[in-house]
Amino acid sequence: METIVTIGRQYGSGGRQVGKRLAAALGVPFYDKALIEEAAKKSGIDPRHFERGDETAANSFLFAVSMGLYGGAQLPAPMEYSVSDRIFFAQADVIRNAAENGPCVIVGRCADYILRERSDLLSVFLYAGKEDRVQRAVQEYGVAPERAEEQVQKMDKRRGSYYAYYTGRRWQDIANYGLSLDTGIFGVDGAARLLERAVLEREARG
Amino acid sequence: METIVTIGRQYGSGGRQVGKRLAAALGVPFYDKALIEEAAKKSGIDPRHFERGDETAANSFLFAVSMGLYGGAQLPAPMEYSVSDRIFFAQADVIRNAAENGPCVIVGRCADYILRERSDLLSVFLYAGKEDRVQRAVQEYGVAPERAEEQVQKMDKRRGSYYAYYTGRRWQDIANYGLSLDTGIFGVDGAARLLERAVLEREARG
Repeated sequence: METIVTIGRQYGSGGRQVGKRLAAALGVPFYDKALIEEAAKKSGIDPRHFERGDETAANSFLFAVSMGLYGGAQLPAPMEYSVSDRIFFAQADVIRNAAENGPCVIVGRCADYILRERSDLLSVFLYAGKEDRVQRAVQEYGVAPERAEEQVQKMDKRRGSYYAYYTGRRWQDIANYGLSLDTGIFGVDGAARLLERAVLEREARG
Repeated sequence: METIVTIGRQYGSGGRQVGKRLAAALGVPFYDKALIEEAAKKSGIDPRHFERGDETAANSFLFAVSMGLYGGAQLPAPMEYSVSDRIFFAQADVIRNAAENGPCVIVGRCADYILRERSDLLSVFLYAGKEDRVQRAVQEYGVAPERAEEQVQKMDKRRGSYYAYYTGRRWQDIANYGLSLDTGIFGVDGAARLLERAVLEREARG
């Protein structure tokens, strides 16, 4: 059975790079921020709203679309949804469509939660010690050294809140994931190879 | 650099079996309950106290030994220690000695915490869904089916409390571990192979 890999990751853990290498090694599509653009394009919302997190723009088209998309859950009345929520619903739809199209690697965006009912899911969480993450923020993301620690904390807080808000789960809860690892121990390449092996072991069990 | 692997595990996750296979694959010693016996033998405490968790027997020899062993932490006055605490100190000593003797696999007993300062440590946590664990309890540990779910809950509660008491950390906190995985996804053999690969990847980084 083929595998959909979702990767949640702490800021600065190199999770996006790991995911990209894993997708290349497995020969499957890789999705991350491109998701946002695809969702925007599909929904017809001005892409600038995605960047700004604009809460004022209402888009009944996206809302109408999204109503059918978010797992058929009982949703309250339309007016209660912010643009952020609608963007989330649209993204969830993109994620579900991607998974329907076959094996792939999806980084972030609560994909583990959105796809939680799938039996072909391998949900992964990547993290690292604070020093490793601060170093990566400076060296690879170009964050100013004096701001890097603050940036790491801020981004994790943001990701944790986003995850909690849309899933009702704790972001760093071991139970959300089939496998979690510290990229500081294995490096980006080592982590990608380990995950590739994990996919093979999972598929060997059928 | 060679690797000391510690394995924390939920009851019924098959963690002990995984550890045993991993140790065999790596060709290194495997430690689990044998630790208790070795600690008992070394300390001179009647091994029956280990089984019963007898709180009344005091053993000043073990206490004297353990004082020097538990990481040089500031310890309160001798009389405040229960036999359980003294057993823990003696076990911590056994674990430290095992690690000093070279690469090995150690299951349980807060070994990840006891060895946390070692740079050659790979700390692993193994878990599984409740259904998988109940099934293993019945099929492999011989627990009566009608009692299995209760047993799984009771044992996890016990392990979590033990861990929290002796380490001040949360047992299932992702941050305590370099790698965590769900044995329900990979199986015992698959998990052992993945961990073997993790050891090799870690050592390749040096």
